[in-house]
Amino acid sequence: MIHINENYFKLQAGYLFPEIGRRVREFQKANPQADIIKMGIGDVTQPLAPSVIRAFHEGVDEMSKAETFKGYSPEQGYYFLREAIANNEYLSRGADIHPDEIFISDGSKCDTGNILEIFGNNNIIAVQDPVYPVYVDTCVMAGRTGNYQENGYYDGLVYLPCTSENGFIPEIPKERVDIIFLCYPNNPTGTVASKTELKKWVDYALKNKSVILFDAAYEAYISDHDIPHTIYEIEGAREVAIEFRSFSKTAGFTGTRCAYTIIPKNLVATTSNGVEEAVHPLWFRRQATKFNGVSYPVQKAAAAIFTPEGKNEVKSTISYYMNNAGILREKLTKLGFQVFGGKDAPYVWVNSNRGIRSWDLFDKLLKEANLVGTPGSGFGPSGEGYFRFSSFATHENVLNAMDRLNNLKW
Amino acid sequence: MIHINENYFKLQAGYLFPEIGRRVREFQKANPQADIIKMGIGDVTQPLAPSVIRAFHEGVDEMSKAETFKGYSPEQGYYFLREAIANNEYLSRGADIHPDEIFISDGSKCDTGNILEIFGNNNIIAVQDPVYPVYVDTCVMAGRTGNYQENGYYDGLVYLPCTSENGFIPEIPKERVDIIFLCYPNNPTGTVASKTELKKWVDYALKNKSVILFDAAYEAYISDHDIPHTIYEIEGAREVAIEFRSFSKTAGFTGTRCAYTIIPKNLVATTSNGVEEAVHPLWFRRQATKFNGVSYPVQKAAAAIFTPEGKNEVKSTISYYMNNAGILREKLTKLGFQVFGGKDAPYVWVNSNRGIRSWDLFDKLLKEANLVGTPGSGFGPSGEGYFRFSSFATHENVLNAMDRLNNLKW
Repeated sequence: MIHINENYFKLQAGYLFPEIGRRVREFQKANPQADIIKMGIGDVTQPLAPSVIRAFHEGVDEMSKAETFKGYSPEQGYYFLREAIANNEYLSRGADIHPDEIFISDGSKCDTGNILEIFGNNNIIAVQDPVYPVYVDTCVMAGRTGNYQENGYYDGLVYLPCTSENGFIPEIPKERVDIIFLCYPNNPTGTVASKTELKKWVDYALKNKSVILFDAAYEAYISDHDIPHTIYEIEGAREVAIEFRSFSKTAGFTGTRCAYTIIPKNLVATTSNGVEEAVHPLWFRRQATKFNGVSYPVQKAAAAIFTPEGKNEVKSTISYYMNNAGILREKLTKLGFQVFGGKDAPYVWVNSNRGIRSWDLFDKLLKEANLVGTPGSGFGPSGEGYFRFSSFATHENVLNAMDRLNNLKW
Repeated sequence: MIHINENYFKLQAGYLFPEIGRRVREFQKANPQADIIKMGIGDVTQPLAPSVIRAFHEGVDEMSKAETFKGYSPEQGYYFLREAIANNEYLSRGADIHPDEIFISDGSKCDTGNILEIFGNNNIIAVQDPVYPVYVDTCVMAGRTGNYQENGYYDGLVYLPCTSENGFIPEIPKERVDIIFLCYPNNPTGTVASKTELKKWVDYALKNKSVILFDAAYEAYISDHDIPHTIYEIEGAREVAIEFRSFSKTAGFTGTRCAYTIIPKNLVATTSNGVEEAVHPLWFRRQATKFNGVSYPVQKAAAAIFTPEGKNEVKSTISYYMNNAGILREKLTKLGFQVFGGKDAPYVWVNSNRGIRSWDLFDKLLKEANLVGTPGSGFGPSGEGYFRFSSFATHENVLNAMDRLNNLKW
């Protein structure tokens, strides 16, 4: 008799973004004429950069001739892409990361979910609250938590509340934790972490022999020169941190799919006998066995981001979105919202200051303004009362959305 | 203190194909002038079909303009592709499979590895021996087995020996098993399963409430009209089978990446309280949470396979490879090998009839003929003494390889 994985039944409702999609579809069905502006799931709207498109076409052409055809990708991804990443994203910032420590993948969502497989079930895991739901849901599905509790937390996880009181920067935990998910620039709060802040975490991890799973999917949105783009700018991080990066938000690859994960060769984890083992070979084995690489034309397209032209084009799209973020910050402040983020991050995190709960605000905005955002409580209990606006909409839609909000009756 | 997943240390040596790659690279480094013919990892050599290339370019062009740009894919993949698959691969064969039962993914390797996540750890799993190593290695890595034993089996798995005595068609197990991995046309033996044979398995699964994980990655190579292409041609299979399909070997997508998995809506699994729960929503939740879809231009390219032109082009490439398989069968028989498969499958499974062990033959062929095949024992203990040749090489290389074998001294 086939047994189901019952941990799935501990999950509360659907994964946040499909749940938003479901409510939007339902509303659109009932109101086919409604012109809905979507600023909910954080999906990009601007096309791929011309250099990326050119390289993408070249990659496709290579697949059309036997002499240049490419079969299975090398396990870690093509060297040309890993070398471009190492040089442009790490060595150029004084972060000592080499191509053989980079694993190309089809998404950071996959990697942040799958990475737990190489660590034992007995690790204590900490997450920020509010938090990107994938980290928590993956832990639940894999049986790494207990049940959902009344306070909105899963038993067995350590939550690090991020509130307006602490500036959405959590305290270092007093207890020992083994795995810490950190996301900076933060999704959903749009907060960034200074070098001093990150150093605290690295020092904590060094002292406790913990591992930091550092999600830097939004690093391209940092404009403040003092904010680190990678955790490896912090001394000692190579011994304690795995970093996740994605081209999704950097270069509009949400529908094109390419990302990468860094596992430094000197990162170790411990067996039950206390023997330290390198983590890198385990992830290599995991990926070689359960993954088959990223489409060659996509890897070729991704590499074009690192050409001088590609860099400029990508920067210009990021400016476009950050201009949106600036407008959101300004208008929402004027409309009496309490506004956070949106300076070095594409997300604007707001409190309506009207005592309305997150999902109620979601439903109100959908129904009365045909406007979709993300309810803060979907990211965790500390997000209750908050709401996330994404700057990835078109410029016109951002202006339009703010007009609609302005006309809203409270 | 971060704990490692110690199950990885139960694994014997590297995953088969990287291990082959390692030996080949080592040999090539020591013998840079050697002209190595690779028939080892089962990678294709012929370019993508012209229709596929055209659609691929169109998809890339759509990503270049804001009006046609695509962000995140729908969770299960684009409807146009799922509809084409349902119509062409299932409904046309009388197999009652609908688009909402199809999940587009980036590879069957990923899916056959990840699928176990939605089933409990207490299931008893059966595999054919020899077998595609991913099934076994994934079980080991996930802690679903005990240790490796002297006989080459992992404790806790049920092995179904496939030998020349049973025509490489395993017996139905006498004990109850919950999950059965079956692969037809078989990798590595090139065996196919008749309707009668598959019906035995479906009946067994219905009786025991087991699930069959049916890997049909090579179905496009079936030419015998009596052999089923999908397990859903068998009555009752919708209640007990999940099927994995890939464009890798069907249309040369090993470096392009697209595949799909079928989970019928009436397939159920049981909770510890004996409640039957549908499996489809769990896989949907797994994919929505831990996967972000296949690149849009790739999905568009894949759909072109189902156009009338695309179908003909793909058929012609398959004929090219099957012509290779015919040559391999003929020449290897003449050279005194015992030859199996290669009729309705791209793999030719041979015994040298010279009492030489699989890895010894691998090393001999590499060193003395600069020829790479796959050692049968890498697929399991019952593969010892056997060797797999892939017909995915170029026609010239197949002829050349057979010449080299002809000149080999035993």
